[in-house]
Amino acid sequence: MSPSLYIEPIERLAEQFRRLPGVGKKSAYRMAFSVLELSEEDAKAFSDAILDAKRSVRLCSVCGNMTDGEICSVCSDTDRDRSVICVVEDSRDVIALERVREYNGLYHVLGGVISPMQGVSPSDLTIDMLLRRVSGGEVKEVIIATNPTVEGETTAMYISKLLSPLGIKTSRLAYGIPVGGDLEYADEVTLNRALEGRREI
Amino acid sequence: MSPSLYIEPIERLAEQFRRLPGVGKKSAYRMAFSVLELSEEDAKAFSDAILDAKRSVRLCSVCGNMTDGEICSVCSDTDRDRSVICVVEDSRDVIALERVREYNGLYHVLGGVISPMQGVSPSDLTIDMLLRRVSGGEVKEVIIATNPTVEGETTAMYISKLLSPLGIKTSRLAYGIPVGGDLEYADEVTLNRALEGRREI
Repeated sequence: MSPSLYIEPIERLAEQFRRLPGVGKKSAYRMAFSVLELSEEDAKAFSDAILDAKRSVRLCSVCGNMTDGEICSVCSDTDRDRSVICVVEDSRDVIALERVREYNGLYHVLGGVISPMQGVSPSDLTIDMLLRRVSGGEVKEVIIATNPTVEGETTAMYISKLLSPLGIKTSRLAYGIPVGGDLEYADEVTLNRALEGRREI
Repeated sequence: MSPSLYIEPIERLAEQFRRLPGVGKKSAYRMAFSVLELSEEDAKAFSDAILDAKRSVRLCSVCGNMTDGEICSVCSDTDRDRSVICVVEDSRDVIALERVREYNGLYHVLGGVISPMQGVSPSDLTIDMLLRRVSGGEVKEVIIATNPTVEGETTAMYISKLLSPLGIKTSRLAYGIPVGGDLEYADEVTLNRALEGRREI
């Protein structure tokens, strides 16, 4: 923008929007201007929503999923099948799988995938937590639903090798999900096929 | 999202993002999750940027453009040609025209266009302010740069009719700008052609 038109608070706000995923320079300005058109209360509500989400959302102490309590809604739901755990990369994948409305087991959120390139080792993930959970004896099957990427596959293999000596059935989502894609964007039918066609590894 | 996964602070934040222009449901959730990944300070900075922009940005008392002072940077710039005023719909159009770096006159921001369908009448715009500005005698030409839409054309005709008895040259941006389009998204060259080819109405 021309230096003569530099309005510091707008620039600062646009810069914040630009950091969001999928937001370019022009969109960021559009967003900043749309904030200026909000009422005082609406702008306050927006601002508060950011702080509240950041302050109150933490990780479930059982499965690593996001929650605003101590234990997430899935782990505390007594109607769910406690003999199956579905292992995912992050909380967004839990949302994607819940959308299918077919799976009734529990989840385990790794908080990422093993990636030597990005310096993420198994100890940075919640794999220890997962091993403690399955060692209780209640769990019969672990479904590994990491993304079908190189890192996702590596992580799946790593976990299955740790679980096989424990005599726990380990399965992987079927390749109904497009290879190289992102679980979060898969449609419900594809995700459902992938759940049904899971195979033991 | 499945009711069992409802995390109120995330839902509330995603809802706020959804109100922004061009943001759908999935993008809104992605944005909400990306906020959770920010550091405490970064989340605070984002939240503050919204409040600051809303609180400190107001309309210039001369031209109606956005400013964080009393008079905007264009109106207070003594190097600008005070005999020409370019009339635009909103502050984003000022930014688009300034990007061309060809125009050195002043601006007048209407704050919208006449639109009986949306209940916007001439009295809702800053047209009175414009008439007071041009009545001083210093202004020789008014370039009307409203968007090339039905409402933009109507507003241009309305203003030119008010200005013609005052003996002020009134011109309209040439149709270099794509009809039905949005001034904000025009490229610099097209905007420059439109400025050069302006014609008296």
